[in-house]
Amino acid sequence: MTADEPAQTLAGLGEFAVIDRLVTGRGQPSAVTLGPGDDAAVLSGATVVTTDMLVEGRHFRLDWSTPYQVGRKAIAQNAADIEAMGARTTAFVVAFGAPAETRVDDALALADGLWHEAGALGAGIVGGDLVRAPQWVISVTALGDLDGRQPVRRAGARVGDTVAVVGELGRSAAGYALWDSEIHHFEHLRHRHVVPEPPYGQGRAAAEAGAGAMTDVSDGLLADLGHIAAASGVGIDLTAAGLAADRAAVADAAAAVGADPLAWVLGGGEDHALVATFAGTPPAGWRVIGTVVDGPARVTLDGAAWRGNPGWQSFD
Amino acid sequence: MTADEPAQTLAGLGEFAVIDRLVTGRGQPSAVTLGPGDDAAVLSGATVVTTDMLVEGRHFRLDWSTPYQVGRKAIAQNAADIEAMGARTTAFVVAFGAPAETRVDDALALADGLWHEAGALGAGIVGGDLVRAPQWVISVTALGDLDGRQPVRRAGARVGDTVAVVGELGRSAAGYALWDSEIHHFEHLRHRHVVPEPPYGQGRAAAEAGAGAMTDVSDGLLADLGHIAAASGVGIDLTAAGLAADRAAVADAAAAVGADPLAWVLGGGEDHALVATFAGTPPAGWRVIGTVVDGPARVTLDGAAWRGNPGWQSFD
Repeated sequence: MTADEPAQTLAGLGEFAVIDRLVTGRGQPSAVTLGPGDDAAVLSGATVVTTDMLVEGRHFRLDWSTPYQVGRKAIAQNAADIEAMGARTTAFVVAFGAPAETRVDDALALADGLWHEAGALGAGIVGGDLVRAPQWVISVTALGDLDGRQPVRRAGARVGDTVAVVGELGRSAAGYALWDSEIHHFEHLRHRHVVPEPPYGQGRAAAEAGAGAMTDVSDGLLADLGHIAAASGVGIDLTAAGLAADRAAVADAAAAVGADPLAWVLGGGEDHALVATFAGTPPAGWRVIGTVVDGPARVTLDGAAWRGNPGWQSFD
Repeated sequence: MTADEPAQTLAGLGEFAVIDRLVTGRGQPSAVTLGPGDDAAVLSGATVVTTDMLVEGRHFRLDWSTPYQVGRKAIAQNAADIEAMGARTTAFVVAFGAPAETRVDDALALADGLWHEAGALGAGIVGGDLVRAPQWVISVTALGDLDGRQPVRRAGARVGDTVAVVGELGRSAAGYALWDSEIHHFEHLRHRHVVPEPPYGQGRAAAEAGAGAMTDVSDGLLADLGHIAAASGVGIDLTAAGLAADRAAVADAAAAVGADPLAWVLGGGEDHALVATFAGTPPAGWRVIGTVVDGPARVTLDGAAWRGNPGWQSFD
């Protein structure tokens, strides 16, 4: 396309031609027996499945994120759920709704982001759907393989276990506040809000190290650990000392915005760190942040309730 | 809830309480090792995967369809893609986007429709996502098991094969035209537009009978057979005689609307009939509608091109 030509739109190019351009030339891992192009795809060994929907204006803004970044985020947040079961992500299917006047180049950039992030996992995108919608909607289903291991559920925390985390906390919340406040510094944090970086491979490492319970931090550390506490019938006591590094990483941004950095670390979701409980020593790279204690099923900080933002709400 | 209480909304009840009500008390088939409630679900034997997104105002209208019917349709059209590979549907994940003011009762009715249709397949809904969106968006991923069989692809049609169909043709298109014309007769056809009835189990039957190529009729018979013709490098010649029963079934409605009934049979999608090619005799219940002939890759009717509606377009 030269600079003089108008950008092609989805309506102008048409569904099948757009799909061809989205799919052509992409590689697939060996677990994909049959990739895109038929009624369905065929995989070997897919046993774990999760889905998430991202809606423009709700889960991303196209004035904050590029289409490429939206694609990376959509894959990352689904892959984190597969990691949180102790599994290895193998494949994705992606449904994409967009207005007819959407530029084909933007759809291709979205696809590039999806494939980039899937590739970082050694996974493929094996199928999809492309439909007209009033705004962008991206719905991703991720499939994973436990490689014969038992899934690491939320219900397996036992009193006396160590609570540990791998990946970042509070960065996405910091980034959101910076974007929202129109503060153009702290590029790393603003970038992290639009593209989270889950600690790929660490879910499997935790499972192999005997993690009792595990989840990814999508709604906020307190909220997500609350799910583990409720499912396991235990309390969880965090330490401010264990969270000090995460707090320090967002302290300057919090000062710039006028926010409490600890609120971001405890209440901010979307970084998709992994948090798990271990009877023994956590794997390399995991940071100890607390202990599993006798019930009631609640999460405390240094033994006391923490009053603040309890995390993301879907319908607030 | 008494008649005096205002209907609860998704925002009023909150995400997790709504999800509880959507999930509680639903059964799961034995292939589901771990159902909803954790980061991801765990299945045995899932090897086939497909996804479709339905957008309010585009793929359904809430003044034509009840939420229950939308749920049934969303499952049915995905299950048809699994059938079309010759597989057995085992499980679904469903992402649901809706405005905050959506009534919880409507979300529950949608879920009832999803579960009703999944139950008819012996399948479960093993996971999902619930998010806020400006209009209803339902994204379904279906998973299936080939039970050790090879998938039936689009590329396997051979010259001399019989082309046969099972399920209905033209009814959904007829129903759409009736709704659109505000003609309140022909209730069966109007109902079929909002709830298609794919011929569950016939995809597996076709695979066991040695089907060479198969697809479901989602874009229109000519368009979908065109995909088989192109993938297989063959021509397909249909006979008007073979389609006479389907034409007759919508003839009265076509007269009422002032449409060509054959256009609905050849061009109308969304009934999710299955169409396949067989070197031998098709299974019981399949109707012979044509023959695979030497290329070029095109679909003809009694040897001649048919001029009419070529089928559904995603972005028209």
